[in-house]
Amino acid sequence: MQPKGMVFLVGAGRGDAGLLTLRGAELLAGADVVVYDALVNSDLLEVAAAGGEISVGGKRSGKSTMPQDELNRLLISKARAGKRVVRLKGGDPYVFGRGGEEAEQLADAGVEFEVVPGVSSFVAVPNYAGVPLTHRDFCSRLTLITGNEDPVKESTRITWAQLAQTP
Amino acid sequence: MQPKGMVFLVGAGRGDAGLLTLRGAELLAGADVVVYDALVNSDLLEVAAAGGEISVGGKRSGKSTMPQDELNRLLISKARAGKRVVRLKGGDPYVFGRGGEEAEQLADAGVEFEVVPGVSSFVAVPNYAGVPLTHRDFCSRLTLITGNEDPVKESTRITWAQLAQTP
Repeated sequence: MQPKGMVFLVGAGRGDAGLLTLRGAELLAGADVVVYDALVNSDLLEVAAAGGEISVGGKRSGKSTMPQDELNRLLISKARAGKRVVRLKGGDPYVFGRGGEEAEQLADAGVEFEVVPGVSSFVAVPNYAGVPLTHRDFCSRLTLITGNEDPVKESTRITWAQLAQTP
Repeated sequence: MQPKGMVFLVGAGRGDAGLLTLRGAELLAGADVVVYDALVNSDLLEVAAAGGEISVGGKRSGKSTMPQDELNRLLISKARAGKRVVRLKGGDPYVFGRGGEEAEQLADAGVEFEVVPGVSSFVAVPNYAGVPLTHRDFCSRLTLITGNEDPVKESTRITWAQLAQTP
């Protein structure tokens, strides 16, 4: 019987390769197939299993190396072929990372998957710049907004006027 | 000459010990002193150097094992004694973690420090529950609010009425 394939949506953290989690490193080392993002630190690919196939998915500034639907089909077909597939994504898969869409497609296709959280860029970037995102004396609330809404939306969901009143 | 001490404020991630970053694990394994939080997975302490001293800092639901100012003094005195000190904090040090205050105290004392970001609980908890925090079709914005404001503040900084109008 063929082994059962599975997809792991793994957050790689941002910038520094040391921000990958222990769980992410373990999965990467045991992967049959790695599909990575242009936003991922390429040093991380050295952690991948020596015999593993490596594909570039993802995009940078709108220039996709592989369209999202093609990428989803790749993840599904490899898992159905019995492979352990690591989908390595910059930051965290579920924080403005479109991991939700990939998870949906996998679920619809009946492919088993696991999501491994990562250090989101909105946490890592200010941190490396020396800026605490919150401080007990000054900040009790934090608002995150995507810089990249889906271009096919009829209108923006971001209500700038309301946002301007945010403390 | 005595070696120069240093403090590393390390985010341990939340719950799952596998959410510690590679950089965090490396620092933990080489630490002379580990000061940890009640919110940290105690399995992580096994990663710490065999000869390292371990202290419990931090708090759970307001019950402090060590007051914050005493904890700050401990970090400073160990670093001044030439130790490599890892301050292991639940989640991310700078996301509602009071790491900003600890960093301020260390800077004021002239102690060198580095902050290593971690997987924040607000990312990890919904993820393990199967909830994508954002989805390209439905969510372009995310608001985080502390559940634990500083009790000495004269009034809350959270404007609930304004917040209720948030999309």
